Amino acid sequence: MADNTHTVTSFETELHKLRAMMAEMGEITQQQVTLALDAITEHEPEAAQKAITLDPRVDALERDVEALAIRMLALRSPMGADLREIVAALKITGDLERIGDYAASIAKRAAIVSEESGNIPLGGLRNMGRLVIENIALMVKALVGQNPTLALEVWHADRAIDEQYTTLFRELVTYMMEDARNIRPCTELLFVARNLERIGDHATNIAERVFYAVTGENMPASRPKGRKVTTASITGEVLAAHQDGQSAKADDAEGEQPPAPRPSAP
Amino acid sequence: MADNTHTVTSFETELHKLRAMMAEMGEITQQQVTLALDAITEHEPEAAQKAITLDPRVDALERDVEALAIRMLALRSPMGADLREIVAALKITGDLERIGDYAASIAKRAAIVSEESGNIPLGGLRNMGRLVIENIALMVKALVGQNPTLALEVWHADRAIDEQYTTLFRELVTYMMEDARNIRPCTELLFVARNLERIGDHATNIAERVFYAVTGENMPASRPKGRKVTTASITGEVLAAHQDGQSAKADDAEGEQPPAPRPSAP
Repeated sequence: MADNTHTVTSFETELHKLRAMMAEMGEITQQQVTLALDAITEHEPEAAQKAITLDPRVDALERDVEALAIRMLALRSPMGADLREIVAALKITGDLERIGDYAASIAKRAAIVSEESGNIPLGGLRNMGRLVIENIALMVKALVGQNPTLALEVWHADRAIDEQYTTLFRELVTYMMEDARNIRPCTELLFVARNLERIGDHATNIAERVFYAVTGENMPASRPKGRKVTTASITGEVLAAHQDGQSAKADDAEGEQPPAPRPSAP
Repeated sequence: MADNTHTVTSFETELHKLRAMMAEMGEITQQQVTLALDAITEHEPEAAQKAITLDPRVDALERDVEALAIRMLALRSPMGADLREIVAALKITGDLERIGDYAASIAKRAAIVSEESGNIPLGGLRNMGRLVIENIALMVKALVGQNPTLALEVWHADRAIDEQYTTLFRELVTYMMEDARNIRPCTELLFVARNLERIGDHATNIAERVFYAVTGENMPASRPKGRKVTTASITGEVLAAHQDGQSAKADDAEGEQPPAPRPSAP
């Protein structure tokens, strides 16, 4: 009996540690995304450097979570909800690591954007960045508090991010068409926008996992997602001038990923 | 004793099934990347459709692997190498799912590229695509055969992919500078190139895991990686004409990811 109590207590301690490491990962990636966007839109090179410097810590935490998970699986033989939580942690840290990686990738583009984006309005990017940062903050709250209501909010809010991406994509291609000097910085900004959109997708993945972990149910699969664009769906006078009468088709399918049923423990 | 034999046999059967599912995932993603590139460079719309249609199967296999892994962890309490293999499977399927996703994303860009890339030479993209497909095939072989020598080859070969990406990136931005009508298709091709580069990174991640799983050691961390570029490192007459005398800096740091030590089981 004493032994059993000891085991349970150790397991609880380890589970607490696992959650704390995930919370730390979430908070660091949130900080990274904020810094990376400040670097791009407010021209703060020190913020860029800081976002990049934080990345190895995120990678190290992913490895630490994996090591602890293996240890817990080997020594505690967890079952049911405990087992599912540990497996979910292995997957969630994969998404968090990607978010940190995309944030660092954005930060690395800051130097050239600052240098050459003098004529390019960054309002659209600021809007998209604000939405993504808000959603990451919400996702971290949902994750730390294991809160399915917040998780559902994250999932719904991703639609606005996708819509903002569509708008921004069109805007940037238009600037490139208007003036060839915009091509260099706008190419960088297109990648920044795409990375932000991917960060939003990973936050949504995490939200889906939190929702499933707590409720045992999948999120409703019918969320109407925002239209994703390729250049094919861009219209407007500037573009039309270069189109030579070719038709433009919307690519509605891209990025459409309804939440899939999660596997359940036996 | 009879019971014990029964348990071991069931575990072996399940492990065999787990490996078969991962092999199937690897082979499908290899097929997806091949189809997606045919769609782009050989203008085959049916190949694009096929690459996209295969994606849900990859996603389903990732979930099946997770469900089986949870089942094995719950019922068999595996230890040591068996436990590490199951945890590695959960991580590797994450990388395979990303590869499938990037391939589908490439395929979705095929329509506009086919329609508007008439004047753009696709030789550079064909070269990069060939290297990526070869490396995916090698990675699948390394994974299925748990072969550390092949895994090391995958890891080394990624350098050539990175170098080809650098070349292609410069080439595409140059075409955009030369003629504004190239901006639309070249923007798509830039994303295609970036997706291929990411596919290469995920193949390398898998190779590192296979190497560690078999040898218990990490790959040497000193591999000299190919230079990654942003537009900042692009030179050439066409670009210079638009540069207004601004300096160009190389961004050598981007994407630099030495293999990190893997956690070991207790």
